[in-house]
Amino acid sequence: MSGQIFRCEHRVTYALCTLGNHVYYARYLDILEAARGDFFRHLGQPFLKWQELDTVFPVVECHLRYQAAARYDDVLTVELWLTEVERIRLNFASRIVNQEGRVLVEAETLHVCTSLTDKPKRLPEELLGVLHPFVHGAAKSPKASGR
Amino acid sequence: MSGQIFRCEHRVTYALCTLGNHVYYARYLDILEAARGDFFRHLGQPFLKWQELDTVFPVVECHLRYQAAARYDDVLTVELWLTEVERIRLNFASRIVNQEGRVLVEAETLHVCTSLTDKPKRLPEELLGVLHPFVHGAAKSPKASGR
Amino acid sequence: MSGQIFRCEHRVTYALCTLGNHVYYARYLDILEAARGDFFRHLGQPFLKWQELDTVFPVVECHLRYQAAARYDDVLTVELWLTEVERIRLNFASRIVNQEGRVLVEAETLHVCTSLTDKPKRLPEELLGVLHPFVHGAAKSPKASGR
Amino acid sequence: MSGQIFRCEHRVTYALCTLGNHVYYARYLDILEAARGDFFRHLGQPFLKWQELDTVFPVVECHLRYQAAARYDDVLTVELWLTEVERIRLNFASRIVNQEGRVLVEAETLHVCTSLTDKPKRLPEELLGVLHPFVHGAAKSPKASGR
Repeated sequence: MSGQIFRCEHRVTYALCTLGNHVYYARYLDILEAARGDFFRHLGQPFLKWQELDTVFPVVECHLRYQAAARYDDVLTVELWLTEVERIRLNFASRIVNQEGRVLVEAETLHVCTSLTDKPKRLPEELLGVLHPFVHGAAKSPKASGR
Repeated sequence: MSGQIFRCEHRVTYALCTLGNHVYYARYLDILEAARGDFFRHLGQPFLKWQELDTVFPVVECHLRYQAAARYDDVLTVELWLTEVERIRLNFASRIVNQEGRVLVEAETLHVCTSLTDKPKRLPEELLGVLHPFVHGAAKSPKASGR
Repeated sequence: MSGQIFRCEHRVTYALCTLGNHVYYARYLDILEAARGDFFRHLGQPFLKWQELDTVFPVVECHLRYQAAARYDDVLTVELWLTEVERIRLNFASRIVNQEGRVLVEAETLHVCTSLTDKPKRLPEELLGVLHPFVHGAAKSPKASGR
Repeated sequence: MSGQIFRCEHRVTYALCTLGNHVYYARYLDILEAARGDFFRHLGQPFLKWQELDTVFPVVECHLRYQAAARYDDVLTVELWLTEVERIRLNFASRIVNQEGRVLVEAETLHVCTSLTDKPKRLPEELLGVLHPFVHGAAKSPKASGR
Protein backbone atom coordinates (compact mmCIF):
# COMPACT_ATOMS: atom_id res chain seq x y z
CA MET A 1 0.00 0.00 0.00
CA SER A 2 3.02 2.23 -0.36
CA GLY A 3 1.59 4.05 -3.33
CA GLN A 4 4.30 3.50 -5.89
CA ILE A 5 3.85 4.84 -9.41
CA PHE A 6 5.14 3.18 -12.56
CA ARG A 7 6.47 5.53 -15.25
CA CYS A 8 7.34 5.05 -18.89
CA GLU A 9 7.85 7.30 -21.88
CA HIS A 10 6.17 7.57 -25.24
CA ARG A 11 7.30 9.73 -28.15
CA VAL A 12 4.49 11.31 -30.20
CA THR A 13 4.67 10.36 -33.89
CA TYR A 14 2.71 11.76 -36.84
CA ALA A 15 0.69 8.53 -36.76
CA LEU A 16 -0.85 9.56 -33.44
CA CYS A 17 -1.75 13.10 -34.46
CA THR A 18 -4.64 14.64 -36.31
CA LEU A 19 -5.53 18.09 -37.68
CA GLY A 20 -4.46 21.04 -35.60
CA ASN A 21 -1.29 19.35 -34.39
CA HIS A 22 -2.58 17.33 -31.51
CA VAL A 23 -2.86 13.68 -30.62
CA TYR A 24 -6.20 12.21 -31.77
CA TYR A 25 -8.45 11.58 -28.76
CA ALA A 26 -8.58 7.80 -29.23
CA ARG A 27 -4.82 7.34 -29.56
CA TYR A 28 -4.22 8.05 -25.87
CA LEU A 29 -5.77 4.63 -25.30
CA ASP A 30 -3.13 3.11 -27.58
CA ILE A 31 -0.48 4.86 -25.49
CA LEU A 32 -2.04 3.60 -22.24
CA GLU A 33 -2.11 0.03 -23.55
CA ALA A 34 1.61 0.25 -24.35
CA ALA A 35 2.24 1.58 -20.83
CA ARG A 36 0.29 -1.23 -19.18
CA GLY A 37 2.32 -3.68 -21.27
CA ASP A 38 5.57 -2.09 -20.08
CA PHE A 39 4.31 -2.18 -16.50
CA PHE A 40 3.50 -5.90 -16.56
CA ARG A 41 6.85 -6.63 -18.19
CA HIS A 42 8.49 -4.59 -15.43
CA LEU A 43 6.63 -6.68 -12.84
CA GLY A 44 8.21 -9.78 -14.30
CA GLN A 45 5.50 -11.37 -16.44
CA PRO A 46 4.42 -9.67 -19.66
CA PHE A 47 0.77 -9.98 -20.73
CA LEU A 48 1.90 -12.57 -23.27
CA LYS A 49 3.02 -14.91 -20.47
CA TRP A 50 -0.30 -14.53 -18.68
CA GLN A 51 -2.10 -15.16 -21.94
CA GLU A 52 -0.16 -18.40 -22.36
CA LEU A 53 -1.47 -19.29 -18.88
CA ASP A 54 -5.04 -18.68 -20.11
CA THR A 55 -5.31 -15.39 -18.21
CA VAL A 56 -6.23 -12.11 -19.88
CA PHE A 57 -7.40 -8.74 -18.60
CA PRO A 58 -10.02 -7.25 -20.93
CA VAL A 59 -11.05 -3.63 -20.45
CA VAL A 60 -14.63 -3.17 -19.32
CA GLU A 61 -14.64 0.60 -18.83
CA CYS A 62 -12.51 3.59 -19.79
CA HIS A 63 -12.69 7.12 -18.51
CA LEU A 64 -10.59 9.88 -19.98
CA ARG A 65 -10.27 13.55 -19.16
CA TYR A 66 -8.41 15.69 -21.65
CA GLN A 67 -6.79 18.76 -20.13
CA ALA A 68 -4.30 19.84 -22.74
CA ALA A 69 -3.10 18.57 -26.09
CA ALA A 70 -0.06 16.42 -26.73
CA ARG A 71 1.87 17.67 -29.78
CA TYR A 72 4.01 16.01 -32.42
CA ASP A 73 7.45 15.02 -31.10
CA ASP A 74 6.45 15.51 -27.46
CA VAL A 75 7.94 13.00 -25.05
CA LEU A 76 5.04 11.91 -22.89
CA THR A 77 5.47 10.31 -19.52
CA VAL A 78 2.74 7.88 -18.61
CA GLU A 79 2.25 7.50 -14.86
CA LEU A 80 0.41 4.36 -13.90
CA TRP A 81 -0.93 2.97 -10.64
CA LEU A 82 -3.82 0.89 -9.38
CA THR A 83 -6.96 1.96 -7.62
CA GLU A 84 -8.41 -1.47 -7.06
CA VAL A 85 -7.09 -5.01 -7.22
CA GLU A 86 -9.48 -7.60 -5.92
CA ARG A 87 -10.88 -10.97 -6.85
CA ILE A 88 -11.51 -10.52 -10.57
CA ARG A 89 -11.08 -6.75 -10.87
CA LEU A 90 -8.05 -4.68 -11.74
CA ASN A 91 -8.43 -0.91 -12.04
CA PHE A 92 -5.68 1.27 -13.44
CA ALA A 93 -5.40 5.00 -13.01
CA SER A 94 -3.01 7.01 -15.12
CA ARG A 95 -1.81 10.44 -15.96
CA ILE A 96 -0.14 11.45 -19.20
CA VAL A 97 2.31 14.28 -18.66
CA ASN A 98 4.38 16.14 -21.24
CA GLN A 99 8.07 17.11 -21.09
CA GLU A 100 7.19 20.36 -19.34
CA GLY A 101 5.43 18.54 -16.54
CA ARG A 102 1.96 19.50 -17.68
CA VAL A 103 -0.78 16.94 -17.10
CA LEU A 104 -2.48 16.36 -20.46
CA VAL A 105 -4.79 13.46 -19.75
CA GLU A 106 -6.13 11.72 -16.67
CA ALA A 107 -7.53 8.28 -17.26
CA GLU A 108 -8.91 5.22 -15.63
CA THR A 109 -9.27 1.82 -17.25
CA LEU A 110 -11.21 -0.90 -15.47
CA HIS A 111 -10.35 -4.49 -16.27
CA VAL A 112 -11.55 -7.93 -15.36
CA CYS A 113 -9.53 -11.10 -15.21
CA THR A 114 -10.83 -13.86 -17.47
CA SER A 115 -9.80 -16.98 -19.30
CA LEU A 116 -9.25 -16.80 -23.07
CA THR A 117 -12.82 -17.98 -23.44
CA ASP A 118 -14.14 -15.02 -21.41
CA LYS A 119 -14.80 -16.95 -18.20
CA PRO A 120 -14.16 -14.72 -15.19
CA LYS A 121 -11.33 -15.95 -13.01
CA ARG A 122 -9.63 -14.77 -9.84
CA LEU A 123 -6.49 -12.68 -10.19
CA PRO A 124 -3.48 -14.99 -9.76
CA GLU A 125 -1.89 -14.86 -6.29
CA GLU A 126 1.52 -14.28 -7.82
CA LEU A 127 0.22 -11.20 -9.58
CA LEU A 128 -1.47 -9.80 -6.47
CA GLY A 129 1.87 -9.82 -4.71
CA VAL A 130 3.73 -7.78 -7.28
CA LEU A 131 0.84 -5.39 -7.91
CA HIS A 132 0.36 -4.57 -4.26
CA PRO A 133 2.99 -1.80 -3.96
CA PHE A 134 1.25 0.09 -6.77
CA VAL A 135 -2.22 0.10 -5.23
CA HIS A 136 -3.32 3.53 -4.01
CA GLY A 137 -5.95 3.55 -1.35
CA ALA A 138 -7.85 6.67 -2.24
CA ALA A 139 -8.42 6.61 -5.93
CA LYS A 140 -7.59 10.10 -7.12
CA SER A 141 -9.01 9.39 -10.50
CA PRO A 142 -11.43 10.93 -13.00
CA LYS A 143 -14.09 8.55 -11.73
CA ALA A 144 -13.70 9.69 -8.16
CA SER A 145 -13.19 13.39 -8.58
CA GLY A 146 -16.64 14.77 -8.13
CA ARG A 147 -18.53 13.11 -10.92
CA MET B 1 -37.16 17.59 -26.09
CA SER B 2 -38.74 14.86 -28.16
CA GLY B 3 -35.89 12.46 -27.62
CA GLN B 4 -34.96 11.61 -31.19
CA ILE B 5 -32.03 9.31 -31.82
CA PHE B 6 -29.67 9.57 -34.78
CA ARG B 7 -28.52 6.26 -36.26
CA CYS B 8 -25.77 5.35 -38.70
CA GLU B 9 -23.92 2.18 -39.64
CA HIS B 10 -20.30 1.16 -39.55
CA ARG B 11 -18.81 -2.00 -41.03
CA VAL B 12 -16.02 -3.59 -38.99
CA THR B 13 -12.79 -3.97 -41.00
CA TYR B 14 -9.60 -5.84 -40.12
CA ALA B 15 -8.03 -2.43 -39.44
CA LEU B 16 -10.28 -1.99 -36.39
CA CYS B 17 -9.65 -5.44 -34.92
CA THR B 18 -6.95 -6.90 -32.74
CA LEU B 19 -6.03 -10.37 -31.44
CA GLY B 20 -8.87 -12.63 -30.51
CA ASN B 21 -11.16 -11.29 -33.23
CA HIS B 22 -12.56 -8.22 -31.59
CA VAL B 23 -12.46 -4.50 -32.18
CA TYR B 24 -9.56 -2.86 -30.30
CA TYR B 25 -10.87 -0.86 -27.33
CA ALA B 26 -9.67 2.50 -28.66
CA ARG B 27 -11.16 2.10 -32.14
CA TYR B 28 -14.72 2.54 -30.86
CA LEU B 29 -13.77 6.18 -30.42
CA ASP B 30 -12.86 6.34 -34.12
CA ILE B 31 -16.28 4.89 -34.90
CA LEU B 32 -18.01 7.41 -32.63
CA GLU B 33 -16.17 10.30 -34.29
CA ALA B 34 -17.37 9.11 -37.70
CA ALA B 35 -20.92 8.91 -36.32
CA ARG B 36 -20.81 12.43 -34.89
CA GLY B 37 -19.56 13.61 -38.29
CA ASP B 38 -22.49 11.91 -40.02
CA PHE B 39 -24.88 13.40 -37.47
CA PHE B 40 -23.71 16.97 -38.03
CA ARG B 41 -23.83 16.46 -41.78
CA HIS B 42 -27.38 15.17 -41.37
CA LEU B 43 -28.25 18.30 -39.38
CA GLY B 44 -27.19 20.40 -42.34
CA GLN B 45 -23.73 21.69 -41.45
CA PRO B 46 -20.80 19.27 -41.35
CA PHE B 47 -18.03 19.91 -38.79
CA LEU B 48 -15.94 21.27 -41.67
CA LYS B 49 -18.41 24.12 -42.19
CA TRP B 50 -18.36 25.01 -38.52
CA GLN B 51 -14.59 24.87 -38.56
CA GLU B 52 -14.57 27.36 -41.44
CA LEU B 53 -16.69 29.58 -39.17
CA ASP B 54 -14.00 29.29 -36.45
CA THR B 55 -16.12 26.92 -34.36
CA VAL B 56 -14.88 23.54 -33.21
CA PHE B 57 -16.04 21.04 -30.58
CA PRO B 58 -13.06 19.43 -28.85
CA VAL B 59 -13.66 16.44 -26.61
CA VAL B 60 -12.93 17.07 -22.95
CA GLU B 61 -14.08 13.76 -21.50
CA CYS B 62 -14.89 10.26 -22.74
CA HIS B 63 -16.58 7.43 -20.90
CA LEU B 64 -16.90 4.00 -22.40
CA ARG B 65 -18.47 0.80 -21.13
CA TYR B 66 -17.70 -2.35 -23.05
CA GLN B 67 -20.40 -4.99 -22.78
CA ALA B 68 -19.62 -7.34 -25.63
CA ALA B 69 -17.13 -7.50 -28.47
CA ALA B 70 -17.67 -6.31 -32.01
CA ARG B 71 -16.29 -8.82 -34.50
CA TYR B 72 -14.80 -8.57 -37.97
CA ASP B 73 -17.44 -7.89 -40.66
CA ASP B 74 -20.12 -6.96 -38.13
CA VAL B 75 -22.41 -4.15 -39.18
CA LEU B 76 -22.58 -1.86 -36.20
CA THR B 77 -25.35 0.64 -35.66
CA VAL B 78 -24.29 3.72 -33.76
CA GLU B 79 -27.14 5.38 -31.90
CA LEU B 80 -26.42 8.95 -30.96
CA TRP B 81 -28.25 11.55 -28.90
CA LEU B 82 -27.50 14.47 -26.60
CA THR B 83 -27.64 14.65 -22.86
CA GLU B 84 -26.73 18.28 -22.50
CA VAL B 85 -26.54 21.26 -24.83
CA GLU B 86 -25.97 24.53 -23.12
CA ARG B 87 -23.82 27.63 -23.42
CA ILE B 88 -20.46 26.12 -24.31
CA ARG B 89 -21.15 22.45 -23.56
CA LEU B 90 -22.30 19.66 -25.82
CA ASN B 91 -22.62 16.14 -24.39
CA PHE B 92 -23.20 13.14 -26.60
CA ALA B 93 -24.42 9.78 -25.45
CA SER B 94 -24.22 6.77 -27.71
CA ARG B 95 -24.77 3.10 -27.96
CA ILE B 96 -23.05 0.78 -30.41
CA VAL B 97 -25.27 -2.14 -31.32
CA ASN B 98 -24.48 -5.11 -33.56
CA GLN B 99 -26.62 -6.68 -36.31
CA GLU B 100 -28.29 -8.95 -33.76
CA GLY B 101 -29.43 -5.99 -31.70
CA ARG B 102 -26.95 -6.59 -28.92
CA VAL B 103 -25.58 -3.49 -27.18
CA LEU B 104 -21.78 -3.72 -27.35
CA VAL B 105 -20.68 -0.36 -26.04
CA GLU B 106 -22.28 2.51 -24.18
CA ALA B 107 -20.42 5.77 -24.38
CA GLU B 108 -20.53 9.40 -23.51
CA THR B 109 -18.32 12.08 -25.00
CA LEU B 110 -18.33 15.55 -23.47
CA HIS B 111 -17.38 18.46 -25.72
CA VAL B 112 -16.90 22.16 -25.44
CA CYS B 113 -17.40 24.75 -28.12
CA THR B 114 -14.32 26.83 -28.87
CA SER B 115 -12.67 28.92 -31.53
CA LEU B 116 -9.80 27.42 -33.52
CA THR B 117 -7.46 29.08 -31.02
CA ASP B 118 -9.11 27.26 -28.10
CA LYS B 119 -11.12 30.21 -26.82
CA PRO B 120 -14.43 29.01 -25.36
CA LYS B 121 -17.45 30.32 -27.26
CA ARG B 122 -21.19 29.93 -26.97
CA LEU B 123 -22.84 27.27 -29.10
CA PRO B 124 -24.24 28.96 -32.23
CA GLU B 125 -27.99 29.67 -32.08
CA GLU B 126 -28.49 27.97 -35.42
CA LEU B 127 -26.96 24.79 -34.06
CA LEU B 128 -29.03 24.86 -30.86
CA GLY B 129 -32.17 24.79 -32.94
CA VAL B 130 -31.32 21.70 -34.95
CA LEU B 131 -29.81 19.85 -31.99
CA HIS B 132 -32.83 20.38 -29.77
CA PRO B 133 -34.92 17.40 -30.98
CA PHE B 134 -32.05 15.07 -30.08
CA VAL B 135 -31.66 16.23 -26.48
CA HIS B 136 -32.83 13.66 -23.93
CA GLY B 137 -33.80 15.04 -20.58
CA ALA B 138 -32.79 12.19 -18.34
CA ALA B 139 -29.39 11.14 -19.48
CA LYS B 140 -29.54 7.36 -19.63
CA SER B 141 -25.82 7.19 -20.08
CA PRO B 142 -22.80 5.44 -18.56
CA LYS B 143 -22.17 8.57 -16.49
CA ALA B 144 -25.62 8.54 -14.98
CA SER B 145 -26.20 4.84 -14.50
CA GLY B 146 -25.20 4.32 -10.94
CA ARG B 147 -21.55 5.29 -11.04
CA MET C 1 -11.91 -9.79 -69.41
CA SER C 2 -14.14 -6.82 -69.98
CA GLY C 3 -12.16 -4.57 -67.73
CA GLN C 4 -14.83 -3.68 -65.21
CA ILE C 5 -13.96 -1.47 -62.27
CA PHE C 6 -15.48 -1.76 -58.80
CA ARG C 7 -16.13 1.54 -57.03
CA CYS C 8 -16.97 2.41 -53.45
CA GLU C 9 -16.84 5.52 -51.32
CA HIS C 10 -15.02 6.43 -48.14
CA ARG C 11 -15.53 9.58 -46.07
CA VAL C 12 -12.36 11.03 -44.51
CA THR C 13 -12.61 11.33 -40.72
CA TYR C 14 -10.28 13.07 -38.26
CA ALA C 15 -9.06 9.61 -37.27
CA LEU C 16 -7.44 9.18 -40.69
CA CYS C 17 -5.73 12.57 -40.78
CA THR C 18 -2.50 13.90 -39.39
CA LEU C 19 -0.81 17.30 -39.11
CA GLY C 20 -1.23 19.63 -42.02
CA ASN C 21 -4.74 18.43 -42.78
CA HIS C 22 -4.06 15.38 -44.86
CA VAL C 23 -4.66 11.67 -44.55
CA TYR C 24 -1.69 9.91 -42.90
CA TYR C 25 0.25 7.89 -45.49
CA ALA C 26 -0.47 4.51 -43.86
CA ARG C 27 -4.23 5.04 -43.56
CA TYR C 28 -4.79 4.69 -47.30
CA LEU C 29 -4.07 1.01 -46.74
CA ASP C 30 -6.92 0.90 -44.20
CA ILE C 31 -9.17 2.49 -46.83
CA LEU C 32 -8.05 -0.02 -49.47
CA GLU C 33 -8.74 -2.94 -47.12
CA ALA C 34 -12.28 -1.64 -46.56
CA ALA C 35 -12.71 -1.35 -50.33
CA ARG C 36 -11.51 -4.90 -50.99
CA GLY C 37 -13.97 -6.05 -48.31
CA ASP C 38 -16.82 -4.22 -50.05
CA PHE C 39 -15.73 -5.69 -53.38
CA PHE C 40 -15.80 -9.29 -52.15
CA ARG C 41 -19.16 -8.70 -50.50
CA HIS C 42 -20.40 -7.29 -53.82
CA LEU C 43 -19.15 -10.44 -55.57
CA GLY C 44 -21.35 -12.50 -53.27
CA GLN C 45 -18.98 -13.94 -50.66
CA PRO C 46 -17.43 -11.61 -48.07
CA PHE C 47 -13.91 -12.40 -46.84
CA LEU C 48 -15.50 -13.77 -43.67
CA LYS C 49 -17.23 -16.52 -45.65
CA TRP C 50 -13.99 -17.49 -47.35
CA GLN C 51 -12.25 -17.47 -44.00
CA GLU C 52 -14.86 -19.90 -42.68
CA LEU C 53 -13.93 -22.09 -45.65
CA ASP C 54 -10.26 -21.96 -44.55
CA THR C 55 -9.33 -19.56 -47.35
CA VAL C 56 -7.62 -16.24 -46.74
CA PHE C 57 -5.77 -13.76 -48.96
CA PRO C 58 -2.79 -12.27 -47.10
CA VAL C 59 -1.00 -9.32 -48.63
CA VAL C 60 2.56 -10.05 -49.71
CA GLU C 61 3.40 -6.72 -51.34
CA CYS C 62 2.05 -3.18 -51.42
CA HIS C 63 2.97 -0.36 -53.71
CA LEU C 64 1.61 3.13 -53.22
CA ARG C 65 2.12 6.34 -55.13
CA TYR C 66 0.88 9.50 -53.51
CA GLN C 67 -0.05 12.24 -55.96
CA ALA C 68 -2.12 14.61 -53.89
CA ALA C 69 -3.46 14.76 -50.36
CA ALA C 70 -6.89 13.64 -49.20
CA ARG C 71 -8.36 16.18 -46.76
CA TYR C 72 -10.74 15.94 -43.81
CA ASP C 73 -14.37 15.40 -44.89
CA ASP C 74 -13.41 14.52 -48.47
CA VAL C 75 -15.51 11.80 -50.07
CA LEU C 76 -13.03 9.46 -51.67
CA THR C 77 -13.93 7.04 -54.40
CA VAL C 78 -11.85 3.89 -54.41
CA GLU C 79 -11.61 2.29 -57.84
CA LEU C 80 -10.55 -1.34 -57.73
CA TRP C 81 -9.69 -3.92 -60.34
CA LEU C 82 -7.41 -6.90 -60.80
CA THR C 83 -4.16 -7.16 -62.69
CA GLU C 84 -3.54 -10.82 -62.12
CA VAL C 85 -5.61 -13.75 -60.93
CA GLU C 86 -3.93 -17.07 -61.28
CA ARG C 87 -3.29 -20.22 -59.31
CA ILE C 88 -2.47 -18.81 -55.89
CA ARG C 89 -2.00 -15.14 -56.78
CA LEU C 90 -4.46 -12.27 -56.69
CA ASN C 91 -3.23 -8.78 -57.56
CA PHE C 92 -5.35 -5.71 -56.99
CA ALA C 93 -4.79 -2.34 -58.55
CA SER C 94 -6.59 0.71 -57.26
CA ARG C 95 -6.94 4.41 -57.54
CA ILE C 96 -8.22 6.72 -54.84
CA VAL C 97 -9.98 9.73 -56.32
CA ASN C 98 -11.46 12.72 -54.51
CA GLN C 99 -14.83 14.40 -55.08
CA GLU C 100 -13.32 16.66 -57.71
CA GLY C 101 -12.12 13.72 -59.75
CA ARG C 102 -8.48 14.17 -58.84
CA VAL C 103 -6.42 11.00 -58.50
CA LEU C 104 -4.78 11.11 -55.07
CA VAL C 105 -3.21 7.69 -54.77
CA GLU C 106 -2.42 4.82 -57.11
CA ALA C 107 -1.82 1.52 -55.43
CA GLU C 108 -1.24 -2.12 -56.00
CA THR C 109 -1.60 -4.85 -53.40
CA LEU C 110 -0.39 -8.36 -54.20
CA HIS C 111 -2.01 -11.24 -52.37
CA VAL C 112 -1.67 -14.96 -52.14
CA CYS C 113 -4.35 -17.49 -51.37
CA THR C 114 -3.64 -19.64 -48.32
CA SER C 115 -5.28 -21.72 -45.66
CA LEU C 116 -5.64 -20.26 -42.17
CA THR C 117 -2.41 -22.05 -41.32
CA ASP C 118 -0.54 -20.24 -44.11
CA LYS C 119 -0.44 -23.15 -46.54
CA PRO C 120 -0.67 -21.87 -50.14
CA LYS C 121 -3.78 -23.04 -51.91
CA ARG C 122 -5.28 -22.53 -55.36
CA LEU C 123 -7.85 -19.78 -55.76
CA PRO C 124 -11.32 -21.35 -55.57
CA GLU C 125 -12.96 -21.94 -58.96
CA GLU C 126 -16.10 -20.16 -57.82
CA LEU C 127 -14.06 -17.07 -57.05
CA LEU C 128 -12.21 -17.12 -60.36
CA GLY C 129 -15.52 -16.93 -62.17
CA VAL C 130 -16.79 -13.83 -60.41
CA LEU C 131 -13.41 -12.07 -60.43
CA HIS C 132 -12.90 -12.55 -64.15
CA PRO C 133 -14.84 -9.49 -65.37
CA PHE C 134 -12.61 -7.27 -63.21
CA VAL C 135 -9.29 -8.52 -64.57
CA HIS C 136 -7.49 -5.96 -66.74
CA GLY C 137 -5.01 -7.37 -69.17
CA ALA C 138 -2.45 -4.61 -69.23
CA ALA C 139 -1.77 -3.66 -65.67
CA LYS C 140 -1.82 0.11 -65.60
CA SER C 141 -0.41 0.19 -62.13
CA PRO C 142 2.42 1.77 -60.15
CA LYS C 143 4.35 -1.44 -60.55
CA ALA C 144 4.14 -1.39 -64.29
CA SER C 145 4.54 2.29 -65.02
CA GLY C 146 8.22 2.59 -65.62
CA ARG C 147 9.66 1.37 -62.36
CA MET D 1 29.47 6.09 -48.77
CA SER D 2 30.46 3.83 -45.93
CA GLY D 3 27.13 2.08 -45.84
CA GLN D 4 26.14 2.61 -42.24
CA ILE D 5 22.77 1.35 -41.02
CA PHE D 6 20.66 3.03 -38.37
CA ARG D 7 18.84 0.69 -36.00
CA CYS D 8 16.05 1.22 -33.50
CA GLU D 9 13.57 -0.99 -31.70
CA HIS D 10 9.80 -1.15 -31.60
CA ARG D 11 7.70 -3.28 -29.28
CA VAL D 12 4.52 -4.72 -30.83
CA THR D 13 1.37 -3.71 -28.93
CA TYR D 14 -2.20 -4.98 -29.30
CA ALA D 15 -2.97 -1.70 -31.04
CA LEU D 16 -0.79 -2.73 -34.00
CA CYS D 17 -2.23 -6.22 -34.36
CA THR D 18 -5.27 -7.62 -36.10
CA LEU D 19 -7.00 -11.02 -36.29
CA GLY D 20 -4.78 -14.06 -36.38
CA ASN D 21 -2.15 -12.49 -34.13
CA HIS D 22 -0.15 -10.48 -36.58
CA VAL D 23 0.61 -6.84 -37.16
CA TYR D 24 -1.91 -5.25 -39.56
CA TYR D 25 -0.29 -4.60 -42.94
CA ALA D 26 -0.65 -0.81 -42.76
CA ARG D 27 0.84 -0.46 -39.26
CA TYR D 28 4.36 -1.26 -40.49
CA LEU D 29 4.24 2.19 -42.06
CA ASP D 30 3.53 3.68 -38.62
CA ILE D 31 6.56 1.79 -37.30
CA LEU D 32 8.72 3.04 -40.17
CA GLU D 33 7.66 6.63 -39.54
CA ALA D 34 8.70 6.31 -35.90
CA ALA D 35 12.04 4.89 -37.02
CA ARG D 36 12.70 7.73 -39.47
CA GLY D 37 11.87 10.14 -36.65
CA ASP D 38 14.39 8.44 -34.36
CA PHE D 39 16.95 8.49 -37.16
CA PHE D 40 16.66 12.22 -37.77
CA ARG D 41 16.80 12.88 -34.03
CA HIS D 42 19.95 10.74 -33.92
CA LEU D 43 21.44 12.83 -36.74
CA GLY D 44 20.98 15.91 -34.60
CA GLN D 45 17.87 17.63 -35.95
CA PRO D 46 14.46 16.04 -35.43
CA PHE D 47 11.83 16.48 -38.15
CA LEU D 48 10.20 19.08 -35.92
CA LYS D 49 13.26 21.33 -36.19
CA TRP D 50 13.30 21.03 -39.98
CA GLN D 51 9.60 21.78 -40.03
CA GLU D 52 10.25 24.96 -38.06
CA LEU D 53 12.74 25.83 -40.82
CA ASP D 54 9.96 25.35 -43.41
CA THR D 55 11.40 22.04 -44.59
CA VAL D 56 9.38 18.82 -44.70
CA PHE D 57 9.85 15.46 -46.39
CA PRO D 58 6.52 14.11 -47.63
CA VAL D 59 6.34 10.52 -48.84
CA VAL D 60 5.65 10.15 -52.54
CA GLU D 61 5.95 6.37 -52.84
CA CYS D 62 5.99 3.34 -50.56
CA HIS D 63 6.93 -0.21 -51.38
CA LEU D 64 6.51 -3.00 -48.89
CA ARG D 65 7.27 -6.71 -49.07
CA TYR D 66 5.86 -8.84 -46.31
CA GLN D 67 7.87 -12.00 -45.67
CA ALA D 68 6.70 -13.11 -42.27
CA ALA D 69 4.34 -11.82 -39.60
CA ALA D 70 5.27 -9.75 -36.57
CA ARG D 71 3.44 -11.01 -33.47
CA TYR D 72 2.17 -9.36 -30.31
CA ASP D 73 4.99 -8.51 -27.87
CA ASP D 74 7.73 -9.03 -30.47
CA VAL D 75 10.64 -6.63 -30.24
CA LEU D 76 11.21 -5.48 -33.78
CA THR D 77 14.44 -3.96 -34.96
CA VAL D 78 14.04 -1.47 -37.76
CA GLU D 79 17.13 -1.15 -39.93
CA LEU D 80 17.22 2.03 -41.95
CA TRP D 81 19.51 3.40 -44.61
CA LEU D 82 19.36 5.55 -47.72
CA THR D 83 19.39 4.54 -51.34
CA GLU D 84 19.33 7.99 -52.83
CA VAL D 85 19.90 11.49 -51.52
CA GLU D 86 20.03 14.11 -54.20
CA ARG D 87 18.67 17.55 -54.93
CA ILE D 88 15.08 17.21 -53.75
CA ARG D 89 14.89 13.43 -53.31
CA LEU D 90 15.47 11.28 -50.26
CA ASN D 91 14.91 7.54 -50.53
CA PHE D 92 14.89 5.30 -47.48
CA ALA D 93 15.26 1.56 -47.50
CA SER D 94 14.46 -0.49 -44.44
CA ARG D 95 14.16 -3.94 -43.05
CA ILE D 96 12.05 -4.93 -40.08
CA VAL D 97 13.59 -7.86 -38.23
CA ASN D 98 12.21 -9.74 -35.23
CA GLN D 99 14.04 -10.82 -32.07
CA GLU D 100 15.06 -14.08 -33.73
CA GLY D 101 16.77 -12.25 -36.55
CA ARG D 102 14.10 -13.08 -39.11
CA VAL D 103 13.41 -10.44 -41.74
CA LEU D 104 9.68 -9.74 -41.66
CA VAL D 105 9.32 -6.78 -43.97
CA GLU D 106 11.48 -5.05 -46.56
CA ALA D 107 10.40 -1.56 -47.44
CA GLU D 108 11.30 1.51 -49.37
CA THR D 109 9.81 4.94 -48.85
CA LEU D 110 10.57 7.68 -51.37
CA HIS D 111 10.39 11.27 -50.16
CA VAL D 112 10.75 14.72 -51.59
CA CYS D 113 11.93 17.82 -49.82
CA THR D 114 9.42 20.67 -49.85
CA SER D 115 8.39 23.80 -48.02
CA LEU D 116 5.31 23.65 -45.77
CA THR D 117 3.35 24.98 -48.75
CA ASP D 118 4.42 22.01 -50.90
CA LYS D 119 7.01 23.89 -52.96
CA PRO D 120 9.91 21.58 -53.85
CA LYS D 121 13.20 22.69 -52.35
CA ARG D 122 16.76 21.37 -52.35
CA LEU D 123 17.83 19.20 -49.45
CA PRO D 124 19.68 21.40 -46.94
CA GLU D 125 23.50 21.15 -47.17
CA GLU D 126 23.73 20.50 -43.45
CA LEU D 127 21.45 17.49 -43.84
CA LEU D 128 23.36 16.10 -46.82
CA GLY D 129 26.49 15.98 -44.71
CA VAL D 130 25.02 13.92 -41.89
CA LEU D 131 23.03 11.64 -44.18
CA HIS D 132 26.01 10.76 -46.35
CA PRO D 133 27.40 7.91 -44.21
CA PHE D 134 24.04 6.13 -44.45
CA VAL D 135 23.81 6.18 -48.24
CA HIS D 136 24.27 2.78 -49.83
CA GLY D 137 25.46 2.79 -53.41
CA ALA D 138 23.72 -0.28 -54.69
CA ALA D 139 20.19 -0.11 -53.44
CA LYS D 140 19.43 -3.57 -52.09
CA SER D 141 15.79 -2.74 -51.82
CA PRO D 142 12.44 -4.17 -52.86
CA LYS D 143 12.45 -1.80 -55.81
CA ALA D 144 15.79 -3.04 -57.08
CA SER D 145 15.54 -6.72 -56.37
CA GLY D 146 14.38 -8.09 -59.66
CA ARG D 147 10.95 -6.55 -59.96
